Amino acid sequence: MENNVETRSARKDREIIEAATAAFIAKGYDGTSMEEIATKAGASKQTVYKHFKDKETLFTEVVEATASQTNDIVEAVTMLLSEAKFMEGGLQQLARRMIAALMDDELLRLRRLIIANADRMPQLGRSWYEKGFERMLASVASCFQKLTDRGLLQTSDPRMAASHLFGMVLWIPMNEAMFTGRNPRSKADLERHADASVEAFLAAYGVRPK
Amino acid sequence: MENNVETRSARKDREIIEAATAAFIAKGYDGTSMEEIATKAGASKQTVYKHFKDKETLFTEVVEATASQTNDIVEAVTMLLSEAKFMEGGLQQLARRMIAALMDDELLRLRRLIIANADRMPQLGRSWYEKGFERMLASVASCFQKLTDRGLLQTSDPRMAASHLFGMVLWIPMNEAMFTGRNPRSKADLERHADASVEAFLAAYGVRPK
Repeated sequence: MENNVETRSARKDREIIEAATAAFIAKGYDGTSMEEIATKAGASKQTVYKHFKDKETLFTEVVEATASQTNDIVEAVTMLLSEAKFMEGGLQQLARRMIAALMDDELLRLRRLIIANADRMPQLGRSWYEKGFERMLASVASCFQKLTDRGLLQTSDPRMAASHLFGMVLWIPMNEAMFTGRNPRSKADLERHADASVEAFLAAYGVRPK
Repeated sequence: MENNVETRSARKDREIIEAATAAFIAKGYDGTSMEEIATKAGASKQTVYKHFKDKETLFTEVVEATASQTNDIVEAVTMLLSEAKFMEGGLQQLARRMIAALMDDELLRLRRLIIANADRMPQLGRSWYEKGFERMLASVASCFQKLTDRGLLQTSDPRMAASHLFGMVLWIPMNEAMFTGRNPRSKADLERHADASVEAFLAAYGVRPK
């Protein structure tokens, strides 16, 4: 019985977070009210406030849930890549998954909201930076360390190498999307961009033929 | 006399743009009124409206003026670098100047404002992207083309190579500043970061010893 009650509460949490994510993405932070989120979640306003004490708390939960989902995608690929036999194909997979996950339209809108509100909610941006950005970097860095130990890459500073891969893959498309408000690139174009970056990455960090 | 009148008008333009830049950076777009800008510029509200038809136009001018100043810095370094004899020192200078120019506190705040308003003012973000981001990339790409022609670099796609240098140098510090609302890094730390990226860039695009 105890378990059942917990489960129901957790499900309500999830439903509210999902409704809030959609609302924030569609209307921004200021444009979204707790009332609207309640309606979308099929809950009363009181229930929403019982689960999340205010709009900022709920926004933080939305940001953390999204960061965590995106991390899971990258982590799944780095785990496979750590065990890979050949570098190029595996790294291409990683770079393509990274770019697909991070150039997702909804994620981009959320990312823009976080940046827009970084001044008045610094804790929120810090949370995204630590739980999203840095955790993802750490997953890739740990994968590069393993690949270096196995003699398949040459990275003396795996975290720096990870940031180089992210930066090469994402600098242009991410900035274009942030500034112009949308990602104008096709999936194929993003993949070509990812592949070119992997080629440069391997020229810098791959194991040279003797 | 004609000239004198033009000069006075151009000076008033500049004074208004400077006052507007400071106001937008301090209080954001919504938090700034044309009246306030007029007071800061020592002009009447009518004069401000005579020079710039509305707040959005003025904000666009601010963004373009700032993009142009930042470009000038990068362009000056790429012109020198195109003539350089040795790569490593010259590229370090370029990367350090890039990171110093782009991690400037006021520029970061302006950049955040552009991203925050990209939804409702897509033309503004597009203008920054084209006149700032892409022009800077084009300067560096043209420099890399010259260096490749001179046999000092190996870039088959100089624009891609330029984006790789920007991305490696800026991915971590720029995102940290965007999300957390400030740049927590010292000048020395930024330079170390730039130098490490130049090292990786040269491993990827430098001319290999035969």
